[in-house]
Amino acid sequence: MTIIPGGVTAALGFTAAGIHCGVRKNKEKRDLALIFCEKPCAAAAVYTTNRVKAAPIYVTMENLENGMARAILANSGNANACAPNGMENARRACAALAKRLGIAEDEIIVNSTGVIGMPLPIEVIEAGIPALADSLSRDGTPAAEAIMTTDLTKKEFACQITLGGRTVTLGGIAKGSGMIKPNLATMMAFVTTDCAITSELLHEALAASCGRTYNRISVDGDTSTNDMSAILASGLAGNPLIAEKNADYDTFVAALDAVNLHLAREIARDGEGATKLVTCRVTGARSEEVAAALSMAVISSSLVKAAMFGADANWGRVLCAMGYSKAPFRPEFVDISFSSPAGTVQVCAQGRGLPFDETLAKEILTQKEITILADCHEGDGQAECYGCDLTYDYVKINGDYRT
Amino acid sequence: MTIIPGGVTAALGFTAAGIHCGVRKNKEKRDLALIFCEKPCAAAAVYTTNRVKAAPIYVTMENLENGMARAILANSGNANACAPNGMENARRACAALAKRLGIAEDEIIVNSTGVIGMPLPIEVIEAGIPALADSLSRDGTPAAEAIMTTDLTKKEFACQITLGGRTVTLGGIAKGSGMIKPNLATMMAFVTTDCAITSELLHEALAASCGRTYNRISVDGDTSTNDMSAILASGLAGNPLIAEKNADYDTFVAALDAVNLHLAREIARDGEGATKLVTCRVTGARSEEVAAALSMAVISSSLVKAAMFGADANWGRVLCAMGYSKAPFRPEFVDISFSSPAGTVQVCAQGRGLPFDETLAKEILTQKEITILADCHEGDGQAECYGCDLTYDYVKINGDYRT
Repeated sequence: MTIIPGGVTAALGFTAAGIHCGVRKNKEKRDLALIFCEKPCAAAAVYTTNRVKAAPIYVTMENLENGMARAILANSGNANACAPNGMENARRACAALAKRLGIAEDEIIVNSTGVIGMPLPIEVIEAGIPALADSLSRDGTPAAEAIMTTDLTKKEFACQITLGGRTVTLGGIAKGSGMIKPNLATMMAFVTTDCAITSELLHEALAASCGRTYNRISVDGDTSTNDMSAILASGLAGNPLIAEKNADYDTFVAALDAVNLHLAREIARDGEGATKLVTCRVTGARSEEVAAALSMAVISSSLVKAAMFGADANWGRVLCAMGYSKAPFRPEFVDISFSSPAGTVQVCAQGRGLPFDETLAKEILTQKEITILADCHEGDGQAECYGCDLTYDYVKINGDYRT
Repeated sequence: MTIIPGGVTAALGFTAAGIHCGVRKNKEKRDLALIFCEKPCAAAAVYTTNRVKAAPIYVTMENLENGMARAILANSGNANACAPNGMENARRACAALAKRLGIAEDEIIVNSTGVIGMPLPIEVIEAGIPALADSLSRDGTPAAEAIMTTDLTKKEFACQITLGGRTVTLGGIAKGSGMIKPNLATMMAFVTTDCAITSELLHEALAASCGRTYNRISVDGDTSTNDMSAILASGLAGNPLIAEKNADYDTFVAALDAVNLHLAREIARDGEGATKLVTCRVTGARSEEVAAALSMAVISSSLVKAAMFGADANWGRVLCAMGYSKAPFRPEFVDISFSSPAGTVQVCAQGRGLPFDETLAKEILTQKEITILADCHEGDGQAECYGCDLTYDYVKINGDYRT
């Protein structure tokens, strides 16, 4: 697998656009994104498990029933969740785009992100669609920018693999950065590929990959109403069609994992108010599932997150969070270390505190990327989860989000 | 039921003390508490469900096997959790106290609270026990102060009921204020009563009451290693012994609920960094359990908590949190209002936003006690849970707790 520049337009057949249409007041901020393929694609998506789902989630579910799509339309600035006429407005957006692009309405994946409960200003979206369609190009960055809300950085990634002698490209964009504890999906992540693959296997690959990537990050423990991870596969790479779980499928899934994992980690790093990417790697657990559950509890703990902000090697909070995770382990077997580019310091052996160099620990924990290592010494299960620190700015951003 | 002044020494037979012995560096801060009864008591306790339990939790479990006790010893400044020689040190503390008071070691409930993973300075506790015992008095406040960690306020409550023509008194103390999401217990809550009741029914009453009180609060979602809720019943009120679930039992449980609910709410109000007590009352749910689960999700949401800090009527986060609670409800039936001494404003009807007076909403949400009301319109189930806002000070307190 080779990492290449670009994002959602790296694969053959795809163009994208991102403009300001007026959903957001700030005219400097793009708020409407489009991803388009020159031909119909195999398509799949997984969605938030929140019982409260935004209207576009339901519209996309309907549109993807046949496993085909060729466009993704998304706005920021308004979630179209718990809002009046939500279904009607999501369908009107699809209808306007379908008419302009000369495609069917059910070939469109649609989503929204932003404040919950306000009516979607559908007129400005309808009015913006011609300009949006006119600006489609091979540059994927405007679309990556148009789905950002409180994100500080755009999130793009692309890579290539070889299948049956043909180069296959995958690329994606995503947005965070609050209300992030995805559960079988993430806030919004859109991946495109020119791989030839059936829509059934595409869905299976996406769902499995989300379980290993977006479902292993948390910014604040809040699972949003609009989570969606979607993928379009154009087949233009000309590789032998993947229609069974063969070696090509495995190679494709590994590349899809790489794209999703990169985007997931970028979402965690850019968590609201975050100053640090915090990884918790649990090893030696009874199974991968146990390791993932222990690791998720650690990176989700407000106390661990605040300690990481303060560069405080408070490992007792790490063991405490593992303890209430409900996953089985023996506290008296656990070793804990903190690691970063500045070094590694072990702070706990067999569930008991070790004397350690506080100055070194402080230096390790003041870096921008920190790893918390917990070895359970009970088996071969291991997993990494990703989060961020809890800061004054998280409180500031979320104390006054609507106004 | 009549509320009376006092706390853990309000009931007949009980004295208490609280001194500075040196576990904490700050000499102004009491760090060792004792509650003592002139006679052996029926006793019960419930404990943290965290898989990582502090040593004194295990020692107390052993000591309470016979359902009897007459003293509670607790220190702040050090949790004696994941610490070297934890069991030995907890037993040494009991032994020193037993010798000084002339009681058996297994008549003592022992607990610790503070930083996890540091050795308990058992010598200063042993050295402090004579002075602690000498200062036993009918004033319960020094003990309430000695168990405080980051708490800003001491938490005491007492009340009286009449059983069989006799006045029965209950009183208690508790501490918060971080690592608070109790699960069948709370950080530390000690209740005394002069009620005559068997230890079996005392335990049943306590466990049920904790489920309705301490288990319905959350400060930060972290379940501590040292949670303990304990009760001593001296029987000195002279009421007919409660040995079955009769009307007297029900009256006693109602009073115990009142004590525990008061202390639980005070813990939530005094959550680390908190400026507001936030109550979420869910009504019209399919059952009480559903209502409690929905309500807990709302008061636990970082986004709801930050919005309450910012006095932002962001009700979409309330419905979103209900949605990921895993409890069943129909979003399209839900009404949401915010209420406080400044008034009530409905912001959502049948799952959709209502136009509302933002100025009034702001005024309501700037009060010190706020209630979030959610009516599910599906049944008779209702419950209240209690939490607090998420503030800059929470981050500050927990960014540098150990140093």
